[in-house]
Amino acid sequence: MKHVSKPLPPYMKTENGELWLTEDDRENLKISYRIKDIIFSEQSPFQHVMILDSYDFGRMLVLDGVVQTTSIDGHIYNEMISHVPLQFHPAPKKVLIIGGGDCGAAREVAKYEQVEEIHLVEIDEMVVTSCKNYLPDVSGNLSDPRVRYVYTDGVAFVKEHVNTYDVIIIDSSDPVGPAKELFSYDFYASVRRALKEDGLMVCQSQSPIFHMDVLKQTYANICQLFPYASIYTATVPTYPGGLWSFTIGANIPLSLPETTSLPSDTKYINEAVLKQCFQLPQFMRKELV
Amino acid sequence: MKHVSKPLPPYMKTENGELWLTEDDRENLKISYRIKDIIFSEQSPFQHVMILDSYDFGRMLVLDGVVQTTSIDGHIYNEMISHVPLQFHPAPKKVLIIGGGDCGAAREVAKYEQVEEIHLVEIDEMVVTSCKNYLPDVSGNLSDPRVRYVYTDGVAFVKEHVNTYDVIIIDSSDPVGPAKELFSYDFYASVRRALKEDGLMVCQSQSPIFHMDVLKQTYANICQLFPYASIYTATVPTYPGGLWSFTIGANIPLSLPETTSLPSDTKYINEAVLKQCFQLPQFMRKELV
Repeated sequence: MKHVSKPLPPYMKTENGELWLTEDDRENLKISYRIKDIIFSEQSPFQHVMILDSYDFGRMLVLDGVVQTTSIDGHIYNEMISHVPLQFHPAPKKVLIIGGGDCGAAREVAKYEQVEEIHLVEIDEMVVTSCKNYLPDVSGNLSDPRVRYVYTDGVAFVKEHVNTYDVIIIDSSDPVGPAKELFSYDFYASVRRALKEDGLMVCQSQSPIFHMDVLKQTYANICQLFPYASIYTATVPTYPGGLWSFTIGANIPLSLPETTSLPSDTKYINEAVLKQCFQLPQFMRKELV
Repeated sequence: MKHVSKPLPPYMKTENGELWLTEDDRENLKISYRIKDIIFSEQSPFQHVMILDSYDFGRMLVLDGVVQTTSIDGHIYNEMISHVPLQFHPAPKKVLIIGGGDCGAAREVAKYEQVEEIHLVEIDEMVVTSCKNYLPDVSGNLSDPRVRYVYTDGVAFVKEHVNTYDVIIIDSSDPVGPAKELFSYDFYASVRRALKEDGLMVCQSQSPIFHMDVLKQTYANICQLFPYASIYTATVPTYPGGLWSFTIGANIPLSLPETTSLPSDTKYINEAVLKQCFQLPQFMRKELV
C-alpha cells in the first residue's frame, strides 16, 4: 500500500494489517470498505479528495470520507441521470452539468452525436483531475472536445445564464457542505431561467428511504417552477438504502418518442428500464403523488 | 439497555457507551448498525437468534450476526416474494412457504381470501416464536387459522409431498449454513413434484451485483425444470447491493390477469411495480437472458 506512510484521515484505519475506510457521515449506520490501496489523497480548497482501490467495489471517489462513486456501480447513477433527460428532449444540443466532477455524466452525454456542447461546472477542479487520472472506469478519461470544464460555483454560474441550455443535469453530492445550495428553491428558479423554452432539468433527489424530506421538498419546488415534473428511481448499491431518486422538471410534456435513441453500450439502462423507472413503489406514491 | 449484562456475541460491541452490531459475513464490506436495545438473544439448535432494536431500521431479526429483515424494509421483500407469484396463479388455494420464519411472507399470503391453507415449514422454531413475539412490524403477530407451522427441514418436507401445492415460496436465507441445500437442483426438482399441474414456485435468488453466480445457477436450474421461468427484482435496502432478485418457475404461462387482485394495504408493490419488476437492467439481461 503505497501511501500508508502518510498520516491517515480519521475515517481510515489499519486493523490486523488490513486497511479500512469507514463512512462516518451517518450517526447510526456505518459502512466500512476494505481498501487495497490509496491511489490519491489530497486536501483541496473545498474537501478532502481521495481515490481508493477497494476490494469489493474497485476504485472509488471519496470526498470527506464519503463514497461518491465506484467502478462497480458508478455507471448506474451516471446512466440514469443522463440518458433519461436526454431521451425526453427532442433535440438536445447544449447540455449543462452542475457538479458531476467524476465526469461520468459527461461521458454518457457525449455519447449523443447531436449534442454540440457539454458544459461541466464543478467547484472543485481536484475532483475532475483525480477522476480523469485515476478513475477511468467512471470518467472514461474524457477528452471529448465538446466538453468545456468550468471550475466555479454552480449557483453563481447558473445565475449568469438565461435561455441558454436544452438540458441541465444537477449531479450534486449530498445537501451538506458545498452542495447545500444546489437543493434550494432559488437555485432551481435560476436553473429554469437558464433553460431554453423547450428545455428540461434533472437533479438527484436523494434516498426515498432515508431522505424523504429532501425528496418531497425538491419535488414540491420543481412542481412549483415547471409545468411538467416527475420522479424516477434506480438502485445504486453504494448509496444508503440502495434505492435512489431523481427528479425532472420540464418545460415540455414528458413523453418519450416512439423509438428511443439509447446508446448501445449502456450497462444498466435499456428501453424497458427507461419506461418503467417512473413507476414508483406504493410508499413513494402515497407520499408524493 | 436491558440485556447488555449478558456476554455480547462477537459481532456486537459497545463503543463510547454506544451499542453496535457489525455484520461479519462479508470479508471486504462491513455494515454496522447502532442498536438501542437487545430485545431477544438466544442460541437455538441451528443458529444464534436475536431481535435487536436499531436506530435507523427499527427492530431487526439477526441470525448468526447477519440482519435478515427489519421493521423499515421487511415489507418490501415479503410483499415481492408473495404477491408476485400469487398474482400469476389463477386460483391459489394451497400455499407452501419454505423458510420464511419471520412470518412476513405468510402474513402477505393470508391477505388472499381464496387461499385455504398456508403451510410454513421453518427449520428453526425459535425464529418463528421470536418474530411473532418481538417483531410484529414484520410478522404481523400472525394468528390466522389457515397457517400451519411445521418445524422441520424444508428439503425433507418437500420430498414427502407430490402434486399438493398451488404455489411454493422459497424464502430462504443466504446459501450457507442451514439454507445451502435450498439452492440445489435436486431441491428444485422436488419442489416441482410437490406442485400441482398448474402450480408455480418462487425463490429469492440473491444479489445480481454480488452473487450473479448464484442467480445464474438458480435460473439455469429452474429453466431446466419448468416450462416457464422468469426473474424479477426489487430494492431491499438492508441487503448487500440493495438490488435483489427473485426467480419464478411455473407450469403455466406467466401472464397476468387483466385486473390484478393486489390487497389495498401494500406499502411497496402496486400494479405498476408488479408489471415492471420483470424489466431487468441491461447487465442482468446480458448475463441471463
